[in-house]
Amino acid sequence: MTDFMDLILNRQSCRNFDKREVEKEKLLKLVEAFRLSPSACNAQPWKLILATGETAKIVRESVQKDGRNKFTDNCPAFAVLVEEQAVLKPAIAARFESQAFAQLDIGLATAHYCLMATDLGLSTCILGWMDEDRLKAALGIPEERRIRLVVATGYAAADDKLREKVRKPLSEMSEFRG
Amino acid sequence: MTDFMDLILNRQSCRNFDKREVEKEKLLKLVEAFRLSPSACNAQPWKLILATGETAKIVRESVQKDGRNKFTDNCPAFAVLVEEQAVLKPAIAARFESQAFAQLDIGLATAHYCLMATDLGLSTCILGWMDEDRLKAALGIPEERRIRLVVATGYAAADDKLREKVRKPLSEMSEFRG
Repeated sequence: MTDFMDLILNRQSCRNFDKREVEKEKLLKLVEAFRLSPSACNAQPWKLILATGETAKIVRESVQKDGRNKFTDNCPAFAVLVEEQAVLKPAIAARFESQAFAQLDIGLATAHYCLMATDLGLSTCILGWMDEDRLKAALGIPEERRIRLVVATGYAAADDKLREKVRKPLSEMSEFRG
Repeated sequence: MTDFMDLILNRQSCRNFDKREVEKEKLLKLVEAFRLSPSACNAQPWKLILATGETAKIVRESVQKDGRNKFTDNCPAFAVLVEEQAVLKPAIAARFESQAFAQLDIGLATAHYCLMATDLGLSTCILGWMDEDRLKAALGIPEERRIRLVVATGYAAADDKLREKVRKPLSEMSEFRG
């Protein structure tokens, strides 16, 4: 790639995957991109479970709860993002509760993951809809933890097209104040 | 740039800014990168206030509460990230409260902003510490809103060095399950 803005414009939520498996080296690079993300007090309050094969089947069932996300039938891999206990620096911990920044942190790392995927020619779809309790039980994640997101990961089908991004205009979502 | 992983490795929290102003075109590109980020139901539950000049002074005072973040004395610009009310799609709204994904969304968009900055030769520091009530009052942000983060934005000082990233090892923060 040549320009980061191109990467942003090429990343889109894919709902039309090819069944093709993702190479292990590429999956490793995705996890590495996630791992290197910044977080409040460098607490890294996350665990990433990369599900393929039989484990992907379990994740697929979970995100298809109530008949949703059927497009994941073809998706070969899923990143399951678990929020872990954050250990903040003493001065910060004295003012904020431990998980105050954890969702922001996981959001940051998820962007790293998805943009890395785009850079590797892969596609992703970030999913918040899942049967969380069942997925936690099936993956052996403690009940008190939260699974914040699941990121469907694979190659887009050959006929998947780049869509134009629909967003609020700059004038509505930002202000420049001198 | 040639590789997204290089961008990730070059982004770091800068605490050693130069006083040099950031060009308006670059600030616009940062906001554009933020604007194009994905969000749950495309709700875009955010407002970005780009503070320079006199407004930057107000933000600086706020993030320096209790003597912290003195390094921002030299930082010329700040993105103030406000969480806005999210409007989710009906099926999602029936199951989740409106702000369930807002912090994850703001985290994603913040990564877009910071990585775009790195791509433009700029440096950033993501700050969660601020006098939020005073900053809301000074900027005319409604009391019921939350300012989630402030991103210090500028050029790093010439003697600012790239540090090695200290992170949990891959084996600790991830699991591959087939």
